[in-house]
Amino acid sequence: MNSQNSIVKTTNQINKAIYDRACKVLTGGVSRNTIFREPHPYYVASAKGSYITDIDGVKRIDFANNMASLIHGHSHPTIVDAVINQLQKGTAFTMGTEIEVAFAELLTERSNSFEKIRFVNSGTEAVMTMIKASRAYTRKPKIAKAEGAYHGTYDYAEISQTANPTNWGDINKPNAVPVVQGTPQGVIDDLIIFPYNDIERTLNILDQHADEIACVLIDPVPHRIGLFPVTNEFVEAIYNWTRKNNSILAFDEVVTYRVNYAGAQANYNVKPDLTALGKIIGGGFPIGALAGKSEIMQVLDPRETFLRHPHSGTFSANPISITAGIIAMELFDEEAVLSLNALTLKARHQIEEAIKIADVPISLTGAGSMFRVHLKAHAPTSYREAYQTIEKKTLIKELLDYLFLKENIIMINTCACMFATTLTQKEVDRLSEALLNGFKLIKPKFDQ
Amino acid sequence: MNSQNSIVKTTNQINKAIYDRACKVLTGGVSRNTIFREPHPYYVASAKGSYITDIDGVKRIDFANNMASLIHGHSHPTIVDAVINQLQKGTAFTMGTEIEVAFAELLTERSNSFEKIRFVNSGTEAVMTMIKASRAYTRKPKIAKAEGAYHGTYDYAEISQTANPTNWGDINKPNAVPVVQGTPQGVIDDLIIFPYNDIERTLNILDQHADEIACVLIDPVPHRIGLFPVTNEFVEAIYNWTRKNNSILAFDEVVTYRVNYAGAQANYNVKPDLTALGKIIGGGFPIGALAGKSEIMQVLDPRETFLRHPHSGTFSANPISITAGIIAMELFDEEAVLSLNALTLKARHQIEEAIKIADVPISLTGAGSMFRVHLKAHAPTSYREAYQTIEKKTLIKELLDYLFLKENIIMINTCACMFATTLTQKEVDRLSEALLNGFKLIKPKFDQ
Repeated sequence: MNSQNSIVKTTNQINKAIYDRACKVLTGGVSRNTIFREPHPYYVASAKGSYITDIDGVKRIDFANNMASLIHGHSHPTIVDAVINQLQKGTAFTMGTEIEVAFAELLTERSNSFEKIRFVNSGTEAVMTMIKASRAYTRKPKIAKAEGAYHGTYDYAEISQTANPTNWGDINKPNAVPVVQGTPQGVIDDLIIFPYNDIERTLNILDQHADEIACVLIDPVPHRIGLFPVTNEFVEAIYNWTRKNNSILAFDEVVTYRVNYAGAQANYNVKPDLTALGKIIGGGFPIGALAGKSEIMQVLDPRETFLRHPHSGTFSANPISITAGIIAMELFDEEAVLSLNALTLKARHQIEEAIKIADVPISLTGAGSMFRVHLKAHAPTSYREAYQTIEKKTLIKELLDYLFLKENIIMINTCACMFATTLTQKEVDRLSEALLNGFKLIKPKFDQ
Repeated sequence: MNSQNSIVKTTNQINKAIYDRACKVLTGGVSRNTIFREPHPYYVASAKGSYITDIDGVKRIDFANNMASLIHGHSHPTIVDAVINQLQKGTAFTMGTEIEVAFAELLTERSNSFEKIRFVNSGTEAVMTMIKASRAYTRKPKIAKAEGAYHGTYDYAEISQTANPTNWGDINKPNAVPVVQGTPQGVIDDLIIFPYNDIERTLNILDQHADEIACVLIDPVPHRIGLFPVTNEFVEAIYNWTRKNNSILAFDEVVTYRVNYAGAQANYNVKPDLTALGKIIGGGFPIGALAGKSEIMQVLDPRETFLRHPHSGTFSANPISITAGIIAMELFDEEAVLSLNALTLKARHQIEEAIKIADVPISLTGAGSMFRVHLKAHAPTSYREAYQTIEKKTLIKELLDYLFLKENIIMINTCACMFATTLTQKEVDRLSEALLNGFKLIKPKFDQ
C-alpha cells in the first residue's frame, strides 16, 4: 500500500466512523439527502470564504455554496459581526423588530414586482405560501407547473419533479407523477403539468383547464429541468394567458434571485404577480419569503374582517436570518452581481475550452452565477432531453467523486456550480483544470 | 395632558412610526400574525433572560417566550457563546457535520419512542414530513385530526383549526372546515375530524374510514383546543385502534416536548409511532424534526433502491440551529424540567388565589410549564366548550392589552403563558399581582 492509498484509507475511516454513528440515529445516516454520498458523506470541521476543511483536515474549494444559498461564501466577516451583535439582543420574540421592516424595504426597492413581502422559514414554505395565497385570491384549485421542475417539498409543488420515461406520458399532455408514495389522488388531480419553454403545447394544456388554474408556477432558470433560462417568449405567453384567465403568474426565484440585481425576473419584459424567495436572501441562515402585488398579498392581512389566508410562523422574520440577509443583500450590490456573473462566464469559457481539449461530448447550460455540466454534445433545451440515463448518472457520479476526492473540488450532485463572491480567478483556474482532468478520465466510458 | 398620558403618547408615536413604514412593505405591516396587535405592534430593541426592552425603552417580563420556543429565555450566555464559536466555522454546507449526529444521539437517548431522527426547518415542515411519511409507509390517503387543534400551516394539518359554531356541524361527525380560502376539495375530503378526548365518538368516526387513515394526529396538550392534556384512556384507545387498522399514531410535540424530560408522551402508557418536534429544540433558532420508529422512518432513506419519500432541505440540520439546540436541551435536564414545572405550578396556584380574591368566573388549564387562562368559571374540557364568543374574545384582548401596556407583562394572545427557566419567584409574583389587577378591571364586564 503506497502512502496515497493510506491517506485515503485513513480519511475514509474517520468520516466513516461518524457515519456509522449517524446510521444509528438518522435515517440513512443523513438529515438531508443532498449531503449523502456513497459509501458515506464527509463532515465539515470549518469553512471560510470558498474553502471547506473536513474533519480530516482536507481542504476543498466549494462551488456548491450550500445548494446555492451562500452568495458570499462561508463565515463572511461582516455577516458574522452583525450576527454576533444581534445575538446579544435576542434571536426570536413574540414582538416585531425594526430590521424586518428595513429588510422588506430593501427587497421592495430592489425588485419592482415586489410591492409587499411576507417572510417565512424556507423555500419550501415560501412556495407553499405562494400556492395557498394564489388559491385564496383566485378561489381556484389547480396548480400548473413544468415537468421536472423542483419547487421544494410541498406536495402540490413537487409533483412530476422526478417524472421519467416510464411514467411521464405523452408530451402533449404530460402525466402528473407523484414524487412521494401515498400522495393523495386529490393532489395529483389538481396538478396540470406542462413542457417548459414549449409555448404551443403549454397553452393548449392550460386552455383545457382555463377556469380552474390558481397559478402557473415558473422557475426562470430551473436547476433540475436542466438549468437553462425560460425564454422571454414563453414568459410573455404565460403572462398573457394568466391575464386572460384570471390566473396568477408565480415565479419561484428561491435559487435564481442571484441571477440579476433584481432577480432573474429582471431579464424579462413582463413581471410575475408573486415571487417565492429563499436561499441567498438569508445570508447563510434559514429563510424564505413571498413577495408580490399588494392586491394579492392582501389575502394575508390580519386586519381584514374576513382573513382569507391566516398565516404565522414561530421563526418567521427572526432577527438573526433578517440581520444576515440584509448584510448579504447589501453586499450583493449591482457591481457585485455584474462582477460575479462575469467571473462565472469566464469559468464557463474555460470549461468549454477544456471540453474541446478533452474532445468529449459535454455541454454547459446556465445563467448568471450558475452553470451545469451535461454529458451531452449539445446543450439540452427541455427536461426530457436533459433527462439522464442510468449510465449517464453513473458517469456523472464518477466525475463528481473524482473531483471531490482527488481534486478537492465540491460541486452540486447534478454536476452544477453556484458561484460565490469569494471565488477568484485562482479557484476558477483550479476548477477548469480539475474538470479537464475529469473529462479525460471519463472519456473512454462515453462509448460504452 | 398629564405626564402619564404624554409618555403613552410618545411610545405610541415611535412604535407607530415603524408600523407605518411596515404597512408600506409588509402585508398588514407584519410578517407573523401573532405579533400583530391593534392599533400597532411593538418593536424589540433587545432582550435578556425573561425581559424584553422595546424601542422606547419600556422593559416587560416575557411569559410568551416566542410562542413557547425559548425554554431558557433570551440570549442565554452559554447558547450565545456556542453559537458565536460555530459562526466562525460556517453556518451551512452541502456536507454533513458531526454535531447533527450528536444532537440526534441526544434526542434518541432522551425519548425512547425516537429510534431515528430527521431535522427540518420548522414545526410546519415537521408535521408536513410526518404526514407525508405516514402516507408513504401506509399507502393510505386520509389524515385524522382533532377539531380545533393547531398543527402548523400545511393544508392537511390545518383543516378545522378554526371551526366555529356556524360551520363545525354535528359533534358525532364534525365537518372538515378549511382555514384558507380556496383550499382544494381533495384536501377537505381527505381529512377526518374527531372530537378530542371523546373516545366513543372518535372511535366511531375512525371506524367509518378504517381502511383509509394513514395517521391519527394528536397534540398531547393542544394549545388552541384549550391547553388541557389528552387523557391516558384516549391515547390508549387511539393507539389500539391504530394497531388494529394498520395506521400510525402521530404526536405533534412541537409545543409540548417541554412538558417532561422525554416530552408530554412520557405521561402516557403507550408511545407514538412518529413525533413532530420544533420550538425549544432549536435553542432560539429555526428548527423542526421528525422522530420515530426506524421501520417507518425508513421511507426517507436515500440508500433505498425505491425511495418512497425523497426529502431534503437547504437549511435542514444547519449547524447553528443544531449547536443552539444541543446546548438548550443539555441545560434542560431532568432537574431543570422538574424545577420549571414546579415554578409554573406555583404560578398557577397564585393565579387561582387571585381568581378567588377577585371573585371572577375564570379558570386555568395547562400542563408542565404551560398554562392558559379561560374566562369561564369551570375549566373547559373540549374545543367546543373552550370556544370563545366574540364578547369573550374582546374581554381577553382588553385583559392582554392592560397587562402589556400597564403592567408590562407579555402573554400569548390566547391568554396563555409558556415559562422559561430564567423566570423566578419575583416574576411569578408580578404576574399574579398583575393578573389580579386585570381580573378586577374586567370583572364588571362579565355581566354585560
